[in-house]
Amino acid sequence: MTIYTLAEIAQALGAEALGDETLVLRGLSEPQDAAHDQLALAFSESAAADLSAAAEAALLWSDADWKALGLKGAVCVPRPRFSLGPLSKMFDEGPKIGSGVHPSAVIDPSAVIGKGASVGPFVVIGADVVVGDNAQIGAHTTIGYGTKIGAQALIHAGVNIGHKVTIGDDFTCQSGTVIGSDGFSFVTPDKAPTEQIRETLGERGETAGQHWTRIHSLGSVTIGDQVDIGANTCIDRGTIRDTKIGNRTKIDNFVQLAHNAVVGEDCLLCGASGVAGSSTLGDRVVLAGQSGVVDNVTVGDDVILSGSGKIRTNQPAGRVLMGDPAIPMKSGIEQYKALRRLPRLAKDVAALKKAPTSDSDNS
Amino acid sequence: MTIYTLAEIAQALGAEALGDETLVLRGLSEPQDAAHDQLALAFSESAAADLSAAAEAALLWSDADWKALGLKGAVCVPRPRFSLGPLSKMFDEGPKIGSGVHPSAVIDPSAVIGKGASVGPFVVIGADVVVGDNAQIGAHTTIGYGTKIGAQALIHAGVNIGHKVTIGDDFTCQSGTVIGSDGFSFVTPDKAPTEQIRETLGERGETAGQHWTRIHSLGSVTIGDQVDIGANTCIDRGTIRDTKIGNRTKIDNFVQLAHNAVVGEDCLLCGASGVAGSSTLGDRVVLAGQSGVVDNVTVGDDVILSGSGKIRTNQPAGRVLMGDPAIPMKSGIEQYKALRRLPRLAKDVAALKKAPTSDSDNS
Amino acid sequence: MTIYTLAEIAQALGAEALGDETLVLRGLSEPQDAAHDQLALAFSESAAADLSAAAEAALLWSDADWKALGLKGAVCVPRPRFSLGPLSKMFDEGPKIGSGVHPSAVIDPSAVIGKGASVGPFVVIGADVVVGDNAQIGAHTTIGYGTKIGAQALIHAGVNIGHKVTIGDDFTCQSGTVIGSDGFSFVTPDKAPTEQIRETLGERGETAGQHWTRIHSLGSVTIGDQVDIGANTCIDRGTIRDTKIGNRTKIDNFVQLAHNAVVGEDCLLCGASGVAGSSTLGDRVVLAGQSGVVDNVTVGDDVILSGSGKIRTNQPAGRVLMGDPAIPMKSGIEQYKALRRLPRLAKDVAALKKAPTSDSDNS
Repeated sequence: MTIYTLAEIAQALGAEALGDETLVLRGLSEPQDAAHDQLALAFSESAAADLSAAAEAALLWSDADWKALGLKGAVCVPRPRFSLGPLSKMFDEGPKIGSGVHPSAVIDPSAVIGKGASVGPFVVIGADVVVGDNAQIGAHTTIGYGTKIGAQALIHAGVNIGHKVTIGDDFTCQSGTVIGSDGFSFVTPDKAPTEQIRETLGERGETAGQHWTRIHSLGSVTIGDQVDIGANTCIDRGTIRDTKIGNRTKIDNFVQLAHNAVVGEDCLLCGASGVAGSSTLGDRVVLAGQSGVVDNVTVGDDVILSGSGKIRTNQPAGRVLMGDPAIPMKSGIEQYKALRRLPRLAKDVAALKKAPTSDSDNS
Repeated sequence: MTIYTLAEIAQALGAEALGDETLVLRGLSEPQDAAHDQLALAFSESAAADLSAAAEAALLWSDADWKALGLKGAVCVPRPRFSLGPLSKMFDEGPKIGSGVHPSAVIDPSAVIGKGASVGPFVVIGADVVVGDNAQIGAHTTIGYGTKIGAQALIHAGVNIGHKVTIGDDFTCQSGTVIGSDGFSFVTPDKAPTEQIRETLGERGETAGQHWTRIHSLGSVTIGDQVDIGANTCIDRGTIRDTKIGNRTKIDNFVQLAHNAVVGEDCLLCGASGVAGSSTLGDRVVLAGQSGVVDNVTVGDDVILSGSGKIRTNQPAGRVLMGDPAIPMKSGIEQYKALRRLPRLAKDVAALKKAPTSDSDNS
Repeated sequence: MTIYTLAEIAQALGAEALGDETLVLRGLSEPQDAAHDQLALAFSESAAADLSAAAEAALLWSDADWKALGLKGAVCVPRPRFSLGPLSKMFDEGPKIGSGVHPSAVIDPSAVIGKGASVGPFVVIGADVVVGDNAQIGAHTTIGYGTKIGAQALIHAGVNIGHKVTIGDDFTCQSGTVIGSDGFSFVTPDKAPTEQIRETLGERGETAGQHWTRIHSLGSVTIGDQVDIGANTCIDRGTIRDTKIGNRTKIDNFVQLAHNAVVGEDCLLCGASGVAGSSTLGDRVVLAGQSGVVDNVTVGDDVILSGSGKIRTNQPAGRVLMGDPAIPMKSGIEQYKALRRLPRLAKDVAALKKAPTSDSDNS
C-alpha cells in the first residue's frame, strides 16, 4: 500500500501543505466517504459541503477556507482536477506485472528485452522484437516479429500486437486491444456497387457473380511517444504505408482506426469512435463517444466532434461539429430545435392552406 | 449428450407430460426441423403448422390440441418462451472447461480456489484472489491481484479481469471481455476545449500546447450476483469509487461501461450500447443495441431506450425513449413522421409564398 | 524478404512486362515514396504525377505512357486496384506462425490436426476438433470441443472459437475475435416491457419484480468457405439452429452477429456494424461502418446500407439505403436537404402567418 504524508503530497503537486503536514494518507476519497487517513477530493464549495465528519485532510481549490471545513490540514491548488493527474498516479499500484521475465514466456532468441523490463506469464515475443527498458508486458500478450516498443511501456494482459509495429516511449495499452490487424480492404474485378453508388448516389449496375478479393496490408502501424490506448480497441495496419498515431494521443476502448488512418498529436478518441480507411486527423482533434469519420477525408487541427456525430466530408481546422452528417454545432442546435417544432409547423402549414385566403388561389 | 424423457422435461417445467411420457428426447428443435427424438418448440398455431412429419413430441402453448398435430406426446405451458429458459439450460452442455486446476495454470500461492472449481489451461491468477466454489475459469483468463469471484461463476476462455475487482455469485462472462481496465480520464493544465464547449455551445479559447495528463483509476469494479456479461465487452474501473453493476443485470457483447458508471439491478444492456463516465442507471433499465448514455447523467428506473438512441440529459423513471437526443417515443414517432413529410411540406410552403394572396403582402 | 522480377510480377497478374523485365523488386510503394527497387502503385494520371525521382518501375493503368514517366519498366493493367489483390498477396509475409505444433499447445488427444498445419504457443484445442491441412493457428487461440476448421485457415493470435463450430476452407480471422459466444437471449415470467412496447409503441404494464432468465444457446455457428473475419468481432451461437455466414463473405472489426443471424454469400460487413437476433441478410449485402440491422427482419440480396444507417424493417432486394430508420438513398438525401433548410422554412411559415392575408382568417 502506498502511504504519503500531507507534506509529500503537497511537494509533489508543487503546492504548500497547510496545517498539519505530518498527516499520514493512505488513499484518495470522494468527500462524503473520506476516512481520517484519506485525502478528500473537494474541488468546489458544494463538494466541500459533503465532506464526511471523519475527514482530516483534503485537496481543495486555491482560496478555500480549509479551517472552516473542520480539517486538520489541506493542499489548495488553482485547478484541483489537474492536480488529480499526478496525485492519482502516486497512489496507483497498477497491475503488478512482476519483475523479470516469467519462465513460461516464449521469447524468440533474437528478441532484445530492455533493462528492468517485466514480461508476464505466457507472453509470446517474436523474432527481432525490441522491448524498451523498464517496459512491462502483461500476461498472454503477443508481439509479432520485428516490432519495436519503447521504454516504460505498460501493456496490460491479453494485448495482441502484430509484426513490424513501431511504438514509442511511455506507451500504455489496456487489455484485449489489437494493434496491427490486417486492414479491411477488398476489391472486385469490375467496379463494385459500393464504388458505383458514390458516383451516382444510389444507382448501380449488375453485381451478381463478383467476388471480393483481399488487398493485403503490407504496411504496419507506427505509434508515437506517450500514447495511451484503451481496452478492446483495433488499430489496423496500412496497405502500403503505415497507419499512424501521433505523440501524446489518447485512445479509449472500442476505437477503430482503419488501414492508412493518420491521427495527429494530442488527440482524444473516445469510446467506440472510429476512423475509416485512409482518413487523416490533425492535431488536438477530439472524437467523442460513438462518433465516426468516413474514409478518405481530412479533418483539420482542433476539430471537435460531439458524441455519435459522423464526419462525412473534409473539415477545416477548428470546427466544433455535431450530428450526422456532422455540421457546425450552432447550426446543428438550430436545426435540432426546428426539428422539435416540426410537427407544430406542419399543422401551421395545413392551417394556412385551408385558410379562406387560400381559396382565392383558385379564383 | 444429454437425454431426458418427456416426463422428466414436464417435471422440470412444473407441467404435465401429455401422451407418451416415456418418449426419449436428445435435444430441442425448431418445428420444421424436428427429428423423432427431439422436442419441437412450437409456441403458436402458426409455428405448429410447420411441424415436421417426424416430430413426435413438442413444447406447446396452454390449450394446444397436441393430438390433432399428430404428436405422440407434448408439454403444454402458459408461456412457452419462458419455459425455454430452464429447458434450454437442461440441454446446454456448456464449454466443458474440465475439472480441477490445469497444471499449466499460473496461480499465486496466496490465491484461494473454491471447492469443485475448474481452472483451465494457461489461466493466470494473482495474489490474494478468491475464486468461489464450483466456479469455472476458461483457458487464458487472467485475474488480477485481490479480486474476489463468487460461487458458480462461468468465465469463458480469454477474459481479462483486473485487480481488486469484486464479483458476486452465479456470474457468467463470455470470451474476450475486459473487466477493470483503466478509465479514460484525462485532464489539461488549463480548461480543455471539451470543457469550454459544454459551457459555450461551441466557442473555445486557445488550446495548442496543452497536453493530456491521465487521471489514474484508483477505484475498481463491483459486480452483484447473477450478472451475465457478453463477449468483448469493457467495464472500466472507477476513478476513486468503484464502477458498479447491480444484481441480475444482463450485459451483451461490445458494451462499454466507463469509469464510475453505476448500473442498477435487472437491467438489460444490449450489444454495443455504452454508458459514459459517472452516469447512473436505475433498476430495470433497458438500453437497446448501439444506444448510448452520455457522461454525468442519471437515468431513472424502468427507462427503456430504443436501438441507437442517445440519452443526453437526466431522465425520470419510466420513460420509453428513442432518437438522438433521446425523447419520449410518442414524440419521437410524431417527429419522424413529420420529417418524412418534410420535402412535401417545403413545397407547400413554397406554393403558399407564391400564391396570389401573398402578393397582397406587398400591397 | 520477398523479391520478384518485373517479369514475375507481370506474369502473376496475367499482364505483360514492359521495358526492363529483369528489374528486381522488393516491395510495393505509394508513388511519392517509391525507391528504385519498389514497384510504385500509380493508378491514375494524377497519382503518376507524384512519382518519386527514384522510381524505376510501376503498376499503371492500361494505356499509360510509362516511358514518358521516366520509368525503366512497367506493368499496365485495365483495373490496377483489382490487380493489387494478387500483387499484395505475393508480397505479404503474414504473421509467421511457424511450422508444426508448438510444444506448449494443449491439444486433446482426440483432436485431428491436418497435414502441414501450424499451431502456435499456448493454443488450446478441445476434444474431437478437426483442423484442416495447412491451417495456421496463432498463439493463445482456443478452439472448443467438436469444432471443425477447414484447410488453409489463417487464424491470428488470440482468437476464441467455441464448441461445435463449423468453419469452411480458406478461412481468415484476425486477433481477438470471438466465434460461438452465447447469444444474448433473456426472458421474463410475464411479458417483458420490451415485448409490450413493440405492440403499444410506448405503453407497458408493471414490470418491477420480474427477473431475466437466460435462454441458453444450444445451436452453434456455421461459416462457409473463403470467409474473412476481422479483429475483436463477435459471432454468437444460435439458440436452436446455427448462426450462419455464407461463402466468401467478408467481415470487419467489431462486427456483431447475434444469435440465429443468417448472412448470405459475398456480403461485406464493415467495422462496427451489427445484425441483431434472428435477422437474415441475402447475398452481396453491404453494411457500411457503424450501421445496424434490428432483430427479426429480412434484408434482400444486394441491399447496400450506408454508414451508421439502421435497418428497422424488412427490405426488398437491391435497395440502396441510408439513415435511421434506413430509407432509400434518394429519399434520404432529399429529406436531409429539406432538414438543412428547415430553420429557414420555419421563418417563412412564421412570416406567412403574420402576413396581412392571415388577418382575413379572423374576419
